[in-house]
Amino acid sequence: MRALVLDPNPVLREDYPEPFPSAGESLIRVRMAGICGTDLELTRGYMTYRGIPGHEFVGEVVEGTGSSLIGKRIVGEINSGCGHCNLCQADFGRHCPNRTVLGILGRNGAFAEYLTLPESNLVELPDSIPDELGVFVEPMAAAYEIFEQVHLGRNEKILILGDGRLGALVGLVLWAEAYDPVIGGHHAEKLDLLAALSLKTELEQHLKPGFHTVVDCTGHSNGLRRAMELVRPRGRIILKSTAAVSADLNLAPIVINEVSVIGSRCGRFAPAVEALASGKVDPRPLISAMYPLADALTAFKAASDPQNLKVLLKMD
Amino acid sequence: MRALVLDPNPVLREDYPEPFPSAGESLIRVRMAGICGTDLELTRGYMTYRGIPGHEFVGEVVEGTGSSLIGKRIVGEINSGCGHCNLCQADFGRHCPNRTVLGILGRNGAFAEYLTLPESNLVELPDSIPDELGVFVEPMAAAYEIFEQVHLGRNEKILILGDGRLGALVGLVLWAEAYDPVIGGHHAEKLDLLAALSLKTELEQHLKPGFHTVVDCTGHSNGLRRAMELVRPRGRIILKSTAAVSADLNLAPIVINEVSVIGSRCGRFAPAVEALASGKVDPRPLISAMYPLADALTAFKAASDPQNLKVLLKMD
Repeated sequence: MRALVLDPNPVLREDYPEPFPSAGESLIRVRMAGICGTDLELTRGYMTYRGIPGHEFVGEVVEGTGSSLIGKRIVGEINSGCGHCNLCQADFGRHCPNRTVLGILGRNGAFAEYLTLPESNLVELPDSIPDELGVFVEPMAAAYEIFEQVHLGRNEKILILGDGRLGALVGLVLWAEAYDPVIGGHHAEKLDLLAALSLKTELEQHLKPGFHTVVDCTGHSNGLRRAMELVRPRGRIILKSTAAVSADLNLAPIVINEVSVIGSRCGRFAPAVEALASGKVDPRPLISAMYPLADALTAFKAASDPQNLKVLLKMD
Repeated sequence: MRALVLDPNPVLREDYPEPFPSAGESLIRVRMAGICGTDLELTRGYMTYRGIPGHEFVGEVVEGTGSSLIGKRIVGEINSGCGHCNLCQADFGRHCPNRTVLGILGRNGAFAEYLTLPESNLVELPDSIPDELGVFVEPMAAAYEIFEQVHLGRNEKILILGDGRLGALVGLVLWAEAYDPVIGGHHAEKLDLLAALSLKTELEQHLKPGFHTVVDCTGHSNGLRRAMELVRPRGRIILKSTAAVSADLNLAPIVINEVSVIGSRCGRFAPAVEALASGKVDPRPLISAMYPLADALTAFKAASDPQNLKVLLKMD
């Protein structure tokens, strides 16, 4: 099959072997996939991943032992736990130490014609959610994860640091949930686009300290340092972006100002599917470009351009 | 007056000018003071502090406009806010951007015969708390601050990382509050002393991951890195120690494991005074040595010795 493969530089392969579903897994034909900042980090060595990347997708189940989903359009949770450890038993399979993560850790991902996932990971997409909305379920679930971790007060001053695809999605989700965050970034054009979607925006260099909550969506290792400058004492920083490189950090301000730093990763799909189905969130204006899988290398280049937001791959 | 002065190396001075209380301030004769890890950090450049260090003390009020505390034994909250800003108005004067901090920031401290503090900072010590217990009010308040910030579940596996004076105090306080933490450290002798006080202890190299909560009391910039290894996914790290140096840190595990890092500093004095008065916590076994102020340099050296826990200065 055709697939984009990381070695860690991306290479397009036409002869990659099709995956074979193990017991309990389904074989899925990928329909559409989104390129995420994490995919770009993987090419820079993050997770030392080798294989097919891609974890934001809409697919169609083509095979699965006794699956009721055959022929259905689905999205899939990307973490597969062992099912037996304490964390899996406590419904935290996303944190299972022996988990695979689609396109990130031990399991080939979605930038290919086919992938496999445990059937229990699959969520059927309602007809009201077309593919180009469905590819946003996974990153939107990551945005909704914030609400599973902290209580955001209605009067809080909230800053989203970073005007990239994740910052934009977190902004749309918070706005849909009746918060009024400021998105701070370096790119006037992207900020203009976000402002046209009713979001408050501010150029990074004009930001002033005093936010109760800062969501770091910069994707850079220095995002935390900047967040520490902008958060108020006793405030909180939600770390959303992983970065392949280490940062030289003086953490004393976290102690002195009694700041909380909360790491936040993947979330449950249900709130995202619901928000898309109801039309409460419509992230389609964030789509900068769509390419066929055959042009995946060009798509990766486009996704690396800081002027672009979401770049999609269409498989057929 | 006699005083220990940081320049930033400690020097003993016999002719240091006595402080003069401003309006609303009291002049306090210091009776006893404790040397804290922060004092040692100051000599390494932390806060770029110049002046008299010392912020754990018991004193006697000798002068103060209309003070009802004259002649009384007191302890004193170390932060003095401006009283006017948003944070001060919200009772967070400890975080006022224009605050002074006794012996740490803009205000001479307790390793001297006299100091001044706003009268509103002073808390009278009951007769049941002798000086050698009273000097523990400030660091114990920092330990009790944990309960103002997080809810510790009764079934949590709690690790205190660091067998120094702060780790020991946090251990005694958690134990007194019916938790059963493990103290992990490098020093067998100190761990033996803590074990004799009913605390669970473990040599650092034998610690295994899986703690719900890790309290970093190492005083080292690499404490957070070690805490990240030992905390379980979705667990929390309470950062208690400030350090003068920066650390090269890869923060991706915080995001991947959705760990919360909570900076924690000074606390209200009331819970500490109460715990000492009731005898619920008795930290006197942690006293390694007591020196007269004239021997403050020797005392500083003793406090730097990792074999020692609390070193005290007696002023008269």
